[in-house]
Amino acid sequence: MHELGVVHRTVTRPARSEIAALEPFGVSTVHEAMGRCGLMRPYLRPVYPGARLCGPAVTVLLQPGDNWMLHVAAEQLQPGDVLVAACTTECEDGFFGELLATSVRARGGVGLVIDGGCRDVTALQQMDFPVFSRAINSKGTVKATVGSVNVPVVCANALVRPGDVVVADADGVVVVPAERVGPVADASGLREANEEAKRQRFAKGELGLDMYAMREPLKAAGLRYVD
Amino acid sequence: MHELGVVHRTVTRPARSEIAALEPFGVSTVHEAMGRCGLMRPYLRPVYPGARLCGPAVTVLLQPGDNWMLHVAAEQLQPGDVLVAACTTECEDGFFGELLATSVRARGGVGLVIDGGCRDVTALQQMDFPVFSRAINSKGTVKATVGSVNVPVVCANALVRPGDVVVADADGVVVVPAERVGPVADASGLREANEEAKRQRFAKGELGLDMYAMREPLKAAGLRYVD
Amino acid sequence: MHELGVVHRTVTRPARSEIAALEPFGVSTVHEAMGRCGLMRPYLRPVYPGARLCGPAVTVLLQPGDNWMLHVAAEQLQPGDVLVAACTTECEDGFFGELLATSVRARGGVGLVIDGGCRDVTALQQMDFPVFSRAINSKGTVKATVGSVNVPVVCANALVRPGDVVVADADGVVVVPAERVGPVADASGLREANEEAKRQRFAKGELGLDMYAMREPLKAAGLRYVD
Amino acid sequence: MHELGVVHRTVTRPARSEIAALEPFGVSTVHEAMGRCGLMRPYLRPVYPGARLCGPAVTVLLQPGDNWMLHVAAEQLQPGDVLVAACTTECEDGFFGELLATSVRARGGVGLVIDGGCRDVTALQQMDFPVFSRAINSKGTVKATVGSVNVPVVCANALVRPGDVVVADADGVVVVPAERVGPVADASGLREANEEAKRQRFAKGELGLDMYAMREPLKAAGLRYVD
Amino acid sequence: MHELGVVHRTVTRPARSEIAALEPFGVSTVHEAMGRCGLMRPYLRPVYPGARLCGPAVTVLLQPGDNWMLHVAAEQLQPGDVLVAACTTECEDGFFGELLATSVRARGGVGLVIDGGCRDVTALQQMDFPVFSRAINSKGTVKATVGSVNVPVVCANALVRPGDVVVADADGVVVVPAERVGPVADASGLREANEEAKRQRFAKGELGLDMYAMREPLKAAGLRYVD
Amino acid sequence: MHELGVVHRTVTRPARSEIAALEPFGVSTVHEAMGRCGLMRPYLRPVYPGARLCGPAVTVLLQPGDNWMLHVAAEQLQPGDVLVAACTTECEDGFFGELLATSVRARGGVGLVIDGGCRDVTALQQMDFPVFSRAINSKGTVKATVGSVNVPVVCANALVRPGDVVVADADGVVVVPAERVGPVADASGLREANEEAKRQRFAKGELGLDMYAMREPLKAAGLRYVD
Repeated sequence: MHELGVVHRTVTRPARSEIAALEPFGVSTVHEAMGRCGLMRPYLRPVYPGARLCGPAVTVLLQPGDNWMLHVAAEQLQPGDVLVAACTTECEDGFFGELLATSVRARGGVGLVIDGGCRDVTALQQMDFPVFSRAINSKGTVKATVGSVNVPVVCANALVRPGDVVVADADGVVVVPAERVGPVADASGLREANEEAKRQRFAKGELGLDMYAMREPLKAAGLRYVD
Repeated sequence: MHELGVVHRTVTRPARSEIAALEPFGVSTVHEAMGRCGLMRPYLRPVYPGARLCGPAVTVLLQPGDNWMLHVAAEQLQPGDVLVAACTTECEDGFFGELLATSVRARGGVGLVIDGGCRDVTALQQMDFPVFSRAINSKGTVKATVGSVNVPVVCANALVRPGDVVVADADGVVVVPAERVGPVADASGLREANEEAKRQRFAKGELGLDMYAMREPLKAAGLRYVD
Repeated sequence: MHELGVVHRTVTRPARSEIAALEPFGVSTVHEAMGRCGLMRPYLRPVYPGARLCGPAVTVLLQPGDNWMLHVAAEQLQPGDVLVAACTTECEDGFFGELLATSVRARGGVGLVIDGGCRDVTALQQMDFPVFSRAINSKGTVKATVGSVNVPVVCANALVRPGDVVVADADGVVVVPAERVGPVADASGLREANEEAKRQRFAKGELGLDMYAMREPLKAAGLRYVD
Repeated sequence: MHELGVVHRTVTRPARSEIAALEPFGVSTVHEAMGRCGLMRPYLRPVYPGARLCGPAVTVLLQPGDNWMLHVAAEQLQPGDVLVAACTTECEDGFFGELLATSVRARGGVGLVIDGGCRDVTALQQMDFPVFSRAINSKGTVKATVGSVNVPVVCANALVRPGDVVVADADGVVVVPAERVGPVADASGLREANEEAKRQRFAKGELGLDMYAMREPLKAAGLRYVD
Repeated sequence: MHELGVVHRTVTRPARSEIAALEPFGVSTVHEAMGRCGLMRPYLRPVYPGARLCGPAVTVLLQPGDNWMLHVAAEQLQPGDVLVAACTTECEDGFFGELLATSVRARGGVGLVIDGGCRDVTALQQMDFPVFSRAINSKGTVKATVGSVNVPVVCANALVRPGDVVVADADGVVVVPAERVGPVADASGLREANEEAKRQRFAKGELGLDMYAMREPLKAAGLRYVD
Repeated sequence: MHELGVVHRTVTRPARSEIAALEPFGVSTVHEAMGRCGLMRPYLRPVYPGARLCGPAVTVLLQPGDNWMLHVAAEQLQPGDVLVAACTTECEDGFFGELLATSVRARGGVGLVIDGGCRDVTALQQMDFPVFSRAINSKGTVKATVGSVNVPVVCANALVRPGDVVVADADGVVVVPAERVGPVADASGLREANEEAKRQRFAKGELGLDMYAMREPLKAAGLRYVD
């Protein structure tokens, strides 16, 4: 983990069709469909309402107060990729702003997840360039110390390997291992279908107590009713 | 406090007319009108802009990572009720989402205050189902351990008894004891009327120093002016 | 620092033309143009989206849970001024709301930066009265203990002297020393011009690696590429 | 809750023998024996290692930055009492120090639990006067605004009524309702006896899996073993 | 990552001699010797002064408020092992206390690192059973939902695979990949030797400026001296 | 404020006799004696129990993750000085450890106050080299970007100019402006004498209510007693 000073140029991404199949689903659905794995810490938040992204990760390991590796990473992007930036320590500096967003978009990148700070958020909203960060912070960064690109990183407490697919929306950020993208997309679809049926029953006033046959287990667990 | 494993089916709610009288007022007005009591901690925030609720509480005591009691509570709702969910410990899991919101609404519930996490916030916004929570979090919960429904709970540092009226808006969440709802609505109305008069005087440029006759007390307290 | 019980009536503000020259620029630009100084801690956030302000500071030193000095400060405002309120300790009470905003605006004040809490945020948004605070909190305050007005204060870890210009937007809050406003406005303009050129190059796909001639320094710093 | 401006002189304390029976037990034991209720938030910590207290509560409701009510409360103490101080908002000022500790001890008080700050901690350690607080902070307080004494308070998210018994040690702070002190002391004794038997079995190498017959339930819950 | 419901019985541990070679070194030395990788977040703290541990990890993936898997893990311990417990979400409940410590020690375990809470800390100190946790909390846990044992986990933002060696002391917690233990021990020894030489030079008053030949680079970086 | 890239070699320190006169007093006494100014945020804590320091500040402005300026500052120390290190942003890396402590001590420095992290805390305790920091963290730093030495800094929300005297103990950290050291020492002595008299009266059971003649003001403020 966390090898410093190296850029891996080769990333094995899932098939484009698999990513396309995953893209319609929200983070909470995907997270459930995966078996409740791969969720980043909820302190990562979109920098503007409605931000959303889905794509394979080009990973970045940053040094505190230093965004040099984001420029290095930009060259490694392929269309549809998401930058996922961890840091060797906790740092909320503004590693990323409008200019880098312009560069990333020009290279095909579709968004950023960063366990750090971000700035120029009004411009990012105008561009509709989605960023999920732990802070909004004007504090700029230097370009002095090397980190790495396309090494496995731990970002906001989740492991991300290059090519893993990252999905982010208003509910948070989740990582789908590259080899599981197809099955997770399928499971997400099943889950949504299943939820639609439940939604209709709930909307008619049916209780979860009955829909899920909870009354007996609750009684067995000792729940008692008092008038 | 915090009796576990029990559901009280009987809740004494204030008169509907009293709740209707309280409903127009904002949290800050109500909190002042009550004598600055009953405010929940400000870490509870609406999950979307404009969320607002007012209604008697059906209380829920959750276990960490477990939303079983929310399903139990849904059955106890009467039209106009608000779910108020505390937890036996600090937990930011996503105890509540779109499906439960559908169920709660179908049973007449008008919103949720939860000292925990919430998910599906985009759907909740589309439904305009108001939730005030301490976190937004995709992390789902199990249904394994009993808590309680309609026991007094401490939620975000405020005591809430079943039937107490909860008011929440962009300024926060406040609890009005059931027996005080009428007087607090009256006092809120007086306060607003009083504020309107002050607002007009302030808008004309009158100073608080003069309006509240503060110059003498300030001098007595030792304030001095330097040119 | 932090002299208590005094109001300085004389504030030396920068020339109006200098402030006007600074006003168009965003916080991140200004902060860079100043040499990365004067930034307040990023926990200060606008209380509604789109809030923005720029103006010379009338400083306030508050006591915890006490907003008396805000009324004292209102009298010292001149058109275009910004209230900047520090507190002798950390306190997230709602020191400021709609009525004070009405008063401040009537006296020519254009906004508030407060290392404390704020309430009535829906009304503030309707008024478009910009406030940057560390919390939204209904908890009201008393008027019992004197602080100071127009003394140098440390607000959210930044030194602010009366007359220094404060700029705030979605990226945060920055303080420009009164004597540097003109040069910083100039430097901000140069920076924006420079960024526009870079933006166009980035938008065409040019990499930062090339634009900033980073490849050699990266190699010298030990970065290596692996296929 | 949180009535302001009143001092209740009458407190019904549990029998001294009940308190004495509870005193030997640690917080974790008492909390379990009560059915996992009444625990304050774990941010309350002893101000020196080894601090420990047990006694009926004289409750105090403080205003932020104001310790007037602690002086009022001192008069209400009876030998063996514990001061329990909540605040109408979050405030980490140093409400309490060596002089007040001297006064409290002289009046028979045995310690303090405060959802606020404390100072003079070296002197408190030398006196062995136990304080559990949320912060250590030199910041002094004023005596300007009334709160209350001996009203029910919510302290660090737990309800405390005057006369309820508070137990605090290195594990935290727990509140035992006055009417349950005897039974909870008994249950604590049973629990300790029961734990001693388990401790011996564990010390000999017996596994919880066998002692608690967990293997079948784990299998039923789907746990599988892989070599 | 984070496979649920499985216990891997086979763990490949580094050679005992390698672990013994690593054991004398402190966390800061090991972390540097590894190239500044593998450090857990600094919120993990020893539950008593002087706690220290070094050993291969038996990993545990807990569910919030549920310590069932710690009992499952106890059976998988071999002499010298360290339990490393992550949780599927953030939870500060008291998952671990004296009884489990007795069991773990009886099975040869030498300590615990847990991204959660711990209780009975006075007893743990008396036993000298080292625990590094994010909180001290009396709140007990249930045994209702399965997690996993000996799967790779992310604990306090660091990846830990079963058999990786964990070193913890007053400076924090670091993870050494199983395959790097020998080289890291060697590098730690070299570093300490090197530091001893520097320490002697520093103690004689030699400056880092001269020892590390920093004067020229500082000048090149633009540092200027003013009298 | 926060000028980057400069080292001021000339520092005007208070007279040694003034510092000696201040040294016996604790932080809480000094803070009161100054009129409750100059206190740093309470998140700064001693890295070992009993740490204490008093001396004129050599100030350091660090860059995140970079301790180069601490080496630069070491050369500017005179016997009795305290290093006071702020950072251009929030960063909890381990900027300082045993080797730098050895160097600082050899140059006459008596301790460190840092709004950042510190490591090697066991060694620092053995050396009895006092450090007050916001975190304990093994994460090392680079030497790549210049900051400043002996410029005014804001450290943990307090302004510190070179030569100002810093006092730190278990209660926190306070800054005394260089020109006020003599008077503050005198006022501290008066305060202690005054407190000793009060302590004796409190110890005999006299109440603050009577000692401070509070009964009338409390009544005037509306406090009422209920039996």
